[in-house]
Amino acid sequence: MSKVISSREEDYSKWYNDIVVEADLADHSAVRGCMVIKPHGYAIWEKMQGALDKMFKDTGHVNAYFPLFIPKSLFEAEEKNAEGFAKECAVVTHYRLKTDPSNKGKLIVDPEAKLEEELIVRPTSEAIIWNTYKGWIESYRDLPLLINQWANVVRWEMRTRLFLRTAEFLWQEGHTAHATKEEAIIETKQMLDVYAEFAEKWMAVPVIKGVKTESERFAGADDTYCIEALMQDGKALQAGTSHFLGQNFAKAFDVKFTSKEGKLEYVWATSWGVSTRLMGALIMSHSDDKGLVIPPMLAPTQVVIVPIYKGEEGLKKVSEVALVIKKKLQDKNISVKYDDRDTQRPGWKFAEYELKGYPIRIALGERDLAAGTVEIARRDLLSKEVIRIDDIETYVSKLLVDIQSNLYTKALERTQNMTHKADTYADFKKILDEKTGFVLAHWDGTAETEEKIKAETKATIRCIPLNNVAEQGICIYSGKPSTQRVLFARAY
Amino acid sequence: MSKVISSREEDYSKWYNDIVVEADLADHSAVRGCMVIKPHGYAIWEKMQGALDKMFKDTGHVNAYFPLFIPKSLFEAEEKNAEGFAKECAVVTHYRLKTDPSNKGKLIVDPEAKLEEELIVRPTSEAIIWNTYKGWIESYRDLPLLINQWANVVRWEMRTRLFLRTAEFLWQEGHTAHATKEEAIIETKQMLDVYAEFAEKWMAVPVIKGVKTESERFAGADDTYCIEALMQDGKALQAGTSHFLGQNFAKAFDVKFTSKEGKLEYVWATSWGVSTRLMGALIMSHSDDKGLVIPPMLAPTQVVIVPIYKGEEGLKKVSEVALVIKKKLQDKNISVKYDDRDTQRPGWKFAEYELKGYPIRIALGERDLAAGTVEIARRDLLSKEVIRIDDIETYVSKLLVDIQSNLYTKALERTQNMTHKADTYADFKKILDEKTGFVLAHWDGTAETEEKIKAETKATIRCIPLNNVAEQGICIYSGKPSTQRVLFARAY
Repeated sequence: MSKVISSREEDYSKWYNDIVVEADLADHSAVRGCMVIKPHGYAIWEKMQGALDKMFKDTGHVNAYFPLFIPKSLFEAEEKNAEGFAKECAVVTHYRLKTDPSNKGKLIVDPEAKLEEELIVRPTSEAIIWNTYKGWIESYRDLPLLINQWANVVRWEMRTRLFLRTAEFLWQEGHTAHATKEEAIIETKQMLDVYAEFAEKWMAVPVIKGVKTESERFAGADDTYCIEALMQDGKALQAGTSHFLGQNFAKAFDVKFTSKEGKLEYVWATSWGVSTRLMGALIMSHSDDKGLVIPPMLAPTQVVIVPIYKGEEGLKKVSEVALVIKKKLQDKNISVKYDDRDTQRPGWKFAEYELKGYPIRIALGERDLAAGTVEIARRDLLSKEVIRIDDIETYVSKLLVDIQSNLYTKALERTQNMTHKADTYADFKKILDEKTGFVLAHWDGTAETEEKIKAETKATIRCIPLNNVAEQGICIYSGKPSTQRVLFARAY
Repeated sequence: MSKVISSREEDYSKWYNDIVVEADLADHSAVRGCMVIKPHGYAIWEKMQGALDKMFKDTGHVNAYFPLFIPKSLFEAEEKNAEGFAKECAVVTHYRLKTDPSNKGKLIVDPEAKLEEELIVRPTSEAIIWNTYKGWIESYRDLPLLINQWANVVRWEMRTRLFLRTAEFLWQEGHTAHATKEEAIIETKQMLDVYAEFAEKWMAVPVIKGVKTESERFAGADDTYCIEALMQDGKALQAGTSHFLGQNFAKAFDVKFTSKEGKLEYVWATSWGVSTRLMGALIMSHSDDKGLVIPPMLAPTQVVIVPIYKGEEGLKKVSEVALVIKKKLQDKNISVKYDDRDTQRPGWKFAEYELKGYPIRIALGERDLAAGTVEIARRDLLSKEVIRIDDIETYVSKLLVDIQSNLYTKALERTQNMTHKADTYADFKKILDEKTGFVLAHWDGTAETEEKIKAETKATIRCIPLNNVAEQGICIYSGKPSTQRVLFARAY
């Protein structure tokens, strides 16, 4: 019972961690920076995977699997990419342990089993994949290659937070190869749209689509597109990226194709990914001081029915009706759990399902049976209604849609209310400190200014929004002319 | 076009490898012993995953995810398990690379980024999972824990073969915790039954269920149950294992629970797994000298329609009917591809789909349109029939069931015909060399005899079949008395 979570006001960061741990989403592990994804958290991730996987396949992609390890010589082939990830790589150097001669029962690394070439545990797979594509691509007929991989990756982060930043995380990474630059750019933008649609429709998280500045680009990309979401504490979270890689990897791995015109040309590339970080975005977008709130479209179980009864005879009577309701809802493709455990009391169960974010709770008591009604509680508003059982499936179906849309609308309003314009640096800093959120401001387009603003305020340019309107102005920092506002925020 | 595969008679081992590579199932990678699973192979694996995952969930299991890395001190906690896997472990020793000062553009392992404790890339996850369970289990109310994980694992094998034995492979590993020994044994056997049902019903691969001898047990188990299948070359392949782990891991990681009676007791454990090795079993069970044969229930695409036409006008006419057929089949939940590419000729397509194992091919020509017929070719028998279009969906539905059952029956007959009894050691060796296959023979029950037979004949005891009948006899090797026959074979 005694699961208590901090309030957001009290300690936002602790509130987040409490929800992750107490709602059984994930937990810290014995391995520095690596998490255990617990069944309830993994079930939500599976729902995300299912929806995304279908969207990828509907846009013509297929799945494949590439090795976990990347030989060092391949890893370093694309220099910018290598440089970008070298500082956070887990490196395999040996392939055997042996019994410690001075301490039986303990194992030591066998010095005789040293690898000739070290293996990098993939932080991202461009290198191994483009080395493979070299063998798959000969002619324009082999293009486009539209491949996605679901995998684990490792980046040795020093400061980790469950879901948001972990040394190992799960993700998908799409890697496509194209005959023309135009086609690759269209693919890059298409996948950004897929991510934005998934975030808004499934996760009920509104996002800003944009392009990164050069300093914030993926190492090895010519352009990085992203979706940025705003969390309840006014900090931004990058929720997905789609990279136009130009011919950088094709050149590094010498991947050429014969065009229709018979010319030998380098292949154009994209890569794009979202990760278990999305779980962090989901949690921080909708949850409250009672715990997790899951949008119905990603809830592993959408409705839980809790019986309220006295004695075995009472349970029997209530169960009869509860099972009819369960069946009616399932026939409408609603996922339902009937929790008739006798080891826990209804009040305990109510708190548990609230904490775990089940969208709808139906309480069914002996008194309800006589009246032909049930009590329905919705998690997002923490409100209750008494409803007639007769047409419950229609009511619940509609309610699930309402909850999904209410969560999106609430998040959208919050994001809009927390999106500000600043025209002076003083104003900019004041907004960041007092109002928090996104700040749209003019920037002179130089990496130098970007870096200084970051160093002084901890705010970064999240993106140059794709739907930006041209607007003459002057850079809040340097006073130099600027033609558009860019999106700043402090970020996760 | 020129994809040629060796015949089984000519070179069985090359035949297998040719199918894997030429049918686009998997390929060797730049990393020693690691494979790339190509889209066609991965799509079959996804079908396997889907079916197995549903079976696991239907038997009450949930998915979760545990870290890729295991700290050495945890890895060595269960001594037998550690000893069993120590010789084939990939070990992470460093967490950073740096630029080679003597060779810019090259990277070296940063000696200052040495881990205090080495991390083992999981060869199996008992250690990290039981270390986690310790924090999850307090009372009998927390039991049973029925958790499965889909993951990659690494075992540094010296001799590797695509799918059958690779340094990295994909698998699922179930790890359950129970209050009683009886319940854990029931779980172990239940999951063996799930595997056997999957192999026979979905893969059309008949299997023998049995229990391993002590020498062949999983390191750390009290009992290992397995399913064994017989390949076309008369060698056995272990297709899945389910382990009763007793209290070994609970003791190694100090996992106790308070029983209903208020006593503190060690938890009982099971673990069970199948891997991408199943792909090898699937390929070797059904394929022929023309290429891969996929049972319809695991085929990513069950039916391919190939148009035969002259000119654009001809294609248009054929396509109209082809798309009607496609729709009719899809409405029956049959997966269909209409291949109207004009870059390849029909003959090339026929060969390609034969090689890739599509169960049914429909050829539709302009002449067929007039007659209201199509030509249907089934991959398993390489036979063709001309069928009226009117009721094609009923015909194809039935044909898919026929093919599935024919593949199983053929494999079963082959297995039965290649299962022999031997009563003398001379006979035993003769059968292994001349007839190959499973050999049922009496064994005295000692590890010594088992080891000698293995050394002399390369045959191992695959299992003691669960459906064994008691039978008095004498050991073929030692002449000592025995009460049952055990199943020998040379194996993958």
